[in-house]
Amino acid sequence: MNLNDIARQYGCSVFSPGMNPAIPAKDISPLSQRQKSQVKIASSLRGAIQRSGLRDGMTISFHHHFRNGDFVINMVLDELQRMGFKDLYLAASSLNEIHEPIIGYIQSGLIRQIDTSGCRGRLAEAISAGIMDNPVIFRSHGGRAAAIADGRLKIDVAFLGAPSCDSFGNANGYTREGSGKTICGSLGYARMDAQYAKHVIIITDNIVNYPNVPFGINQRYVDQIVVVDSIGDPEKIMSGATRFTKKPQDLLIAQKAASVIVKSGYFYDGFSLQTGSGGSSLAVTRFLRQYMIDQNVKASFAMGGITGAMVALHEEGLIKRLLDVQSFDLDAANSLKNNRFHQQIDADYYANPFKTGSVVNQLDVVVLSALEVDVDFNVNVLTGSDGVIMGAIGGHPDTAAGAALSIIVCPLLRGRIPSILKHVNTIVTPGCDVDVVVTDQGIAVNPRRPDVEKALRDNHMELTDIHKLQAMAESLTGEPESLEWGPRTVALVTYRDGSLIDIIKSISQGEDLV
Amino acid sequence: MNLNDIARQYGCSVFSPGMNPAIPAKDISPLSQRQKSQVKIASSLRGAIQRSGLRDGMTISFHHHFRNGDFVINMVLDELQRMGFKDLYLAASSLNEIHEPIIGYIQSGLIRQIDTSGCRGRLAEAISAGIMDNPVIFRSHGGRAAAIADGRLKIDVAFLGAPSCDSFGNANGYTREGSGKTICGSLGYARMDAQYAKHVIIITDNIVNYPNVPFGINQRYVDQIVVVDSIGDPEKIMSGATRFTKKPQDLLIAQKAASVIVKSGYFYDGFSLQTGSGGSSLAVTRFLRQYMIDQNVKASFAMGGITGAMVALHEEGLIKRLLDVQSFDLDAANSLKNNRFHQQIDADYYANPFKTGSVVNQLDVVVLSALEVDVDFNVNVLTGSDGVIMGAIGGHPDTAAGAALSIIVCPLLRGRIPSILKHVNTIVTPGCDVDVVVTDQGIAVNPRRPDVEKALRDNHMELTDIHKLQAMAESLTGEPESLEWGPRTVALVTYRDGSLIDIIKSISQGEDLV
Repeated sequence: MNLNDIARQYGCSVFSPGMNPAIPAKDISPLSQRQKSQVKIASSLRGAIQRSGLRDGMTISFHHHFRNGDFVINMVLDELQRMGFKDLYLAASSLNEIHEPIIGYIQSGLIRQIDTSGCRGRLAEAISAGIMDNPVIFRSHGGRAAAIADGRLKIDVAFLGAPSCDSFGNANGYTREGSGKTICGSLGYARMDAQYAKHVIIITDNIVNYPNVPFGINQRYVDQIVVVDSIGDPEKIMSGATRFTKKPQDLLIAQKAASVIVKSGYFYDGFSLQTGSGGSSLAVTRFLRQYMIDQNVKASFAMGGITGAMVALHEEGLIKRLLDVQSFDLDAANSLKNNRFHQQIDADYYANPFKTGSVVNQLDVVVLSALEVDVDFNVNVLTGSDGVIMGAIGGHPDTAAGAALSIIVCPLLRGRIPSILKHVNTIVTPGCDVDVVVTDQGIAVNPRRPDVEKALRDNHMELTDIHKLQAMAESLTGEPESLEWGPRTVALVTYRDGSLIDIIKSISQGEDLV
Repeated sequence: MNLNDIARQYGCSVFSPGMNPAIPAKDISPLSQRQKSQVKIASSLRGAIQRSGLRDGMTISFHHHFRNGDFVINMVLDELQRMGFKDLYLAASSLNEIHEPIIGYIQSGLIRQIDTSGCRGRLAEAISAGIMDNPVIFRSHGGRAAAIADGRLKIDVAFLGAPSCDSFGNANGYTREGSGKTICGSLGYARMDAQYAKHVIIITDNIVNYPNVPFGINQRYVDQIVVVDSIGDPEKIMSGATRFTKKPQDLLIAQKAASVIVKSGYFYDGFSLQTGSGGSSLAVTRFLRQYMIDQNVKASFAMGGITGAMVALHEEGLIKRLLDVQSFDLDAANSLKNNRFHQQIDADYYANPFKTGSVVNQLDVVVLSALEVDVDFNVNVLTGSDGVIMGAIGGHPDTAAGAALSIIVCPLLRGRIPSILKHVNTIVTPGCDVDVVVTDQGIAVNPRRPDVEKALRDNHMELTDIHKLQAMAESLTGEPESLEWGPRTVALVTYRDGSLIDIIKSISQGEDLV
């Protein structure tokens, strides 16, 4: 038998030079030249969109690592609008004030539906006013990661901004050559889109030399690169370091929350910690530091939106590892760039609810903010007291469920508005996952956690009852007026596994926007 | 409409606490306890195999990062044999002398077919003698990565040895807690199996604290962990540092190869380099170092089986980045552990032939060894002059095709055996991908590369012709006797894309083994 016969028998072809067009031909130009050949670099955003295979009705995705400094979403939607696209499903890891122009793209028919962790500003108000035919799907970070990994959320084309990228697609949230134009640190949310989208386009203002390693996004997932003048406003992407709150109320709450941690039984050498966004929550780190030094307790890891305060504790040797899905400030981003044990992780690794090993499932303690908490310990971080969308789910339900001890910090009142209610307007994190509520006026433990209540009482912590906190708030502000919800369902709030935990209805005050 | 109606409309369920059994229940035990709960840690190897769903006829896989010190393959096959399995397809990234017991597992019917990069020792001899009913499939490292990524090689259960692993599956080729029992550095080949196998079992002798980050293998891919006394012989897994050859012939060849690089036109500030295994090939680094210092040339990256010599150049600032799919010695493994710019990459990133961004496609220069080269520049690294299997394809055809300049180093003769022949016994790397052959008796440039020939001649390099080298060898040794191949096809040699480039026939001298 010759090679052809044998190949036939085993169902393969016989090699001959240049036979397989799928293999790039041998390139004899030096690397210095190859890098300029721009095989992945598109001539323009429009050219990249044309080559991507995007069609009406498909799903496009974006990340929110540029926060309120993001230029990418508006830039891409503007181009898609001019190209005449219709009926797209917009899946963003989150949306911000800067994305107000989406209102116009909804009205024009470019955007059919939105899938996001959060929404703020005029866009959120317009959605609450009922501007969309289809409800927004709100997901937690872990819920989104699982939906992408499981194929429930299929992304056709991902448009991912990156502060540095080499010409083959290795992309990072910082740059090692010069200072770059922007820095965002971790690309943890974007890594999901990069890995799972059918077509991935990196949008950058900074092409660097190959190999851009260590990389946040692996070249293997990148189909095209678009070079633009500017991907975002560096000032608004991140500031130098997250400043600690100076509000006495916030500091008081943070101090109490630190006490709860220390006295809960979950403060031991090797414990693990996450703090969410929000003044009180972030300030907890500050008060915890002294306890850690005094009691010689070191954390095995800290997670979350990493801040300069966390980095300082890590550099001091008080936290062994930092796991970073999102860098909250410049100190955190620079630490990620320079520090081997400050590890970039993706949203799946962070919070996929179906995976035992997810970091959220290894948390001893999480400290989280809230807009509203109710007497059943349900938490709302999505809608304001006026019923209008104004926040983001983020990792709230993921960490609350995963952590052995979830602590919610919030003031009893915000101005004349109570935070502790009989019923939250929108349930984002269910009461079954919430263990302790710390307010400036008292601390309440969920009756589901008698172990925590006992530990705190044994350690001489003064506790109250969630109903008492609610009554106290109501006695100060009067019973809150009930909202006049409109007829339309403007958003579905999903739990980590994709099940429906609540809906958001339209609210009359925004009707003029429709 | 209530939540149920809306959920029905959108095809999802309504959240209720504890409703979804796929989400781990809230665990209120502290991390220190959770780590001992061993949710992924199997009671025994047998228990893990039972839970894996492995059935007769399926495909199992292993990595070769433990080289000739590997205990994992024999241990697992022994258990599978005792459990009565039959007809398995054995896909290993490579096989070594220590895997001789596989002969018995072939004879017992446990192993139906083998898929590997290489094979050595008694097992290789037995295969060459015709012991198997089905031919071995030999693949390059890039070919294997592509076959796994494309689904042409489907792995049912991967058994992956790891020198450290936390209880949720984050695994590394080294340990950061104490010294561990073994160290192998990069897990670059194993990462493919981890990512793509249906079921992944880590086998370790060293459970460390969570989180074992930075990780070589991501917990998300790991289904079970088996803890055993010992996964390998540390002495045979790796020695302190790869010692430079002291053989004058090897050094002469290395010196000439370094000259070729420097005078080829591909030696410039920012060039990229890989050296393969083998004394001359590795020694090239040594001679290149002085040229780099003298001419102020720094490499942008070096790739490959990384050695202590490469690490030294990196630490000296002569190589900016090290990309490591396999660490050849202890110095390399420790550098990977401690050095941020010594980056672990997987086999797909290294050498997938279908991806433009693969590292092999960014190489300026690769230096590779050969058992045999012929006058058409075809290279054999698999079978000896006696026709018996004794080597491994490795990344040979991947790097030869990807690099702008591929240099083969080999002595004209090994004892009385010529290395330059009219026809190689087995074609592994086709002549179209080979640019220069450097022997102790002269340097020949492939006529396909007149540009290289011109550059070398312009730089006063003395060149000869491949036919002259072949004639010189034959004049010293006489015409090699032709081999008496048996009737049976014992192996298929595949090119990078899975096409058939050659076959290996049985060879009579081994018949007594059948």
